[in-house]
Amino acid sequence: MISVEEAYNEVLSKTIKLNTNSISISEASGRILAEDIHADQDFPPFNRVMMDGIALDHKLLEQSVIPVQGMQTAGSPQQDVPDGHCMEVMTGAILPRGTDVVVPYEEVNITGDQATISSPENYPPLKNIHLRGTDRKKGDLLIPRGRRVSPAEIAVLATVGKSTVSVMQLNAAIVSTGDELVDIDKVPHPYQVRKSNSHMLAALISQSGYQATLYHIEDDLETTTRKLGEILENHPVVILSGGVSRGKKDFVPDALDALGVNRLFHRVAQRPGKPFWFGERYSKNTVFALPGNPVSTFLCFHRYIKPWLKSCGGEKVTTHTAILGEDFHFAPSLTYFLQVRTVDDQGNRIAFPVAGKGSGDLANLLDADGFIEIPPGRDEFEKGQVFEYLPFR
Amino acid sequence: MISVEEAYNEVLSKTIKLNTNSISISEASGRILAEDIHADQDFPPFNRVMMDGIALDHKLLEQSVIPVQGMQTAGSPQQDVPDGHCMEVMTGAILPRGTDVVVPYEEVNITGDQATISSPENYPPLKNIHLRGTDRKKGDLLIPRGRRVSPAEIAVLATVGKSTVSVMQLNAAIVSTGDELVDIDKVPHPYQVRKSNSHMLAALISQSGYQATLYHIEDDLETTTRKLGEILENHPVVILSGGVSRGKKDFVPDALDALGVNRLFHRVAQRPGKPFWFGERYSKNTVFALPGNPVSTFLCFHRYIKPWLKSCGGEKVTTHTAILGEDFHFAPSLTYFLQVRTVDDQGNRIAFPVAGKGSGDLANLLDADGFIEIPPGRDEFEKGQVFEYLPFR
Repeated sequence: MISVEEAYNEVLSKTIKLNTNSISISEASGRILAEDIHADQDFPPFNRVMMDGIALDHKLLEQSVIPVQGMQTAGSPQQDVPDGHCMEVMTGAILPRGTDVVVPYEEVNITGDQATISSPENYPPLKNIHLRGTDRKKGDLLIPRGRRVSPAEIAVLATVGKSTVSVMQLNAAIVSTGDELVDIDKVPHPYQVRKSNSHMLAALISQSGYQATLYHIEDDLETTTRKLGEILENHPVVILSGGVSRGKKDFVPDALDALGVNRLFHRVAQRPGKPFWFGERYSKNTVFALPGNPVSTFLCFHRYIKPWLKSCGGEKVTTHTAILGEDFHFAPSLTYFLQVRTVDDQGNRIAFPVAGKGSGDLANLLDADGFIEIPPGRDEFEKGQVFEYLPFR
Repeated sequence: MISVEEAYNEVLSKTIKLNTNSISISEASGRILAEDIHADQDFPPFNRVMMDGIALDHKLLEQSVIPVQGMQTAGSPQQDVPDGHCMEVMTGAILPRGTDVVVPYEEVNITGDQATISSPENYPPLKNIHLRGTDRKKGDLLIPRGRRVSPAEIAVLATVGKSTVSVMQLNAAIVSTGDELVDIDKVPHPYQVRKSNSHMLAALISQSGYQATLYHIEDDLETTTRKLGEILENHPVVILSGGVSRGKKDFVPDALDALGVNRLFHRVAQRPGKPFWFGERYSKNTVFALPGNPVSTFLCFHRYIKPWLKSCGGEKVTTHTAILGEDFHFAPSLTYFLQVRTVDDQGNRIAFPVAGKGSGDLANLLDADGFIEIPPGRDEFEKGQVFEYLPFR
């Protein structure tokens, strides 16, 4: 049995190269960019008027009255301002030629075609002008590959004209095992339960920016080996749930062994999720075989698979911390992942344990927003101490 | 001009009732539940074996050797254990009749059909049995309506057999204005820019669990009034960007007025986003007219529209705080939304200002993860002070 840290390092050392595909910007939210995004032109692309008002050469500010001629609206080609005149300008317009300052309407009195400026001393050259290229230069790297696309990235992609964009692609296989499982649209017998892990894992994979295909395998060694063999041919990444404990119907490790998937570890000193199995085959497959109970599956995804997917996609793998909100006792020499609800208190993240009924209590996750990671080696954990925090909302 | 707090309260006082629709569980992630979800049976639905091993009546523990007969596997109907015998059981199986304790294989020596238990005193009745109904009872409320569906909710929905689920529905109109805007697949002239706000807003609406249809209107009063009239007929919620300042091409407020949309406020004492306009029509439409510059649009969405959508959907509206990481100076008597990058330091969220080039610097958002809200009324803000934090990643 290896430690959580060893298991994590082993998983993260086995990242794979992902394929990419090109999709519409309208589908790109939540996906991982597979290309660097550069500025296709200067930001802003022209000297841009920042206020509605008048534009003029600052030398005219000395005059008490300035003749007004014409209007430069947003979206119209750049105009010339005749010598000695000013021009009305609208926010978003290109600055007219022959001007270098903008005075907002609030500070101008326009009577007929004559403008009077109340406090000309407030308008040094370039005031209220967003100069071409001051934010970013044409060719600048704006978004590096490996970045998750959020609405801010969408705005920048639109600005540089990326109506389609290249994103990381992965179609993982999610395989549930267990003869007690029935489909979610069926009414289970009194000794059965509905499949929940596979739907949950599909949602988690989707949240990570990827896709998954669902499979189910019955508890039988021959069937498990045959079906798993087919799945491994079609999916570089396979995530199983169930069938990895010591029961007489737990055929997953034997089937994977028979298929030439090299076991990298089996069993991690953690609760929940101790029977977690991890392996790979000839650089062709990466296989995560998770324990079947839903909270174990959920925890193993967040602690291992999520950072692995981030690392494969070139995303930064970030960690979080939280402050324990009440004393906690845990004696076994295992890393314990405690379900917590966090409270934001004056910039501090305080984590309160959510009392659960054991690792199988799925409904408990509904009241929690994350796990804190309680290390092995001591029994008492005190209010105010800081621990790693794994958010899941 | 009203304060941020006043504007927020006005917006939140105008929540609307949303429609609902039924969708597949595979589409439900990120949507807002429109129905309460109850347990369709006890959790767990039967006395569930928690370890692979043997099940027996605890009274047999006094015997040095116990005869083994049969096996109860997961997914098979409940069996009877003959008097004086134990039975092999697998994790996830229903507990066989006539037994009340499970001893894991690690603690049993089985030779032929005879079992010897190493430390029988460790097995009080009910050990390693997850008793029916101990997590939740049939009929218990598991997930209240108004909850955003995350992977944990997906698992519970699957468990209770909700292959389809009712969610809140809203198809908002997003309307960009501004003659300087061109479509994202076009190459702009030197005085034009591509539409970015409408795509960003669509991504934000989608992130909130809803849908949007995009429109664009030219800078002309007659056209704005006519097109906006049609849009208002088809969308209860309309979000505009641009055309709300004091420019001579800013026709949005006049058009809304002509269409009978009642202005509730125009202009908020904030930076960015001062020209923000908000109104409603005969309880038929709610209209958010946001300033056109991208950072203003983005801020107004997060500060006003996002909590409004949450409130309409019955979600909890939560607030966050962060600790300023360095001194900051801001003199104007406005609420200032400062772009920050936060760092997680020992359970504390520390916010560092991201130097920007003004409210139009869209690319700056790429380096930030949120805004902190700097209140009006003083000029100096010190490292270590706590402020409201609006996360956007």
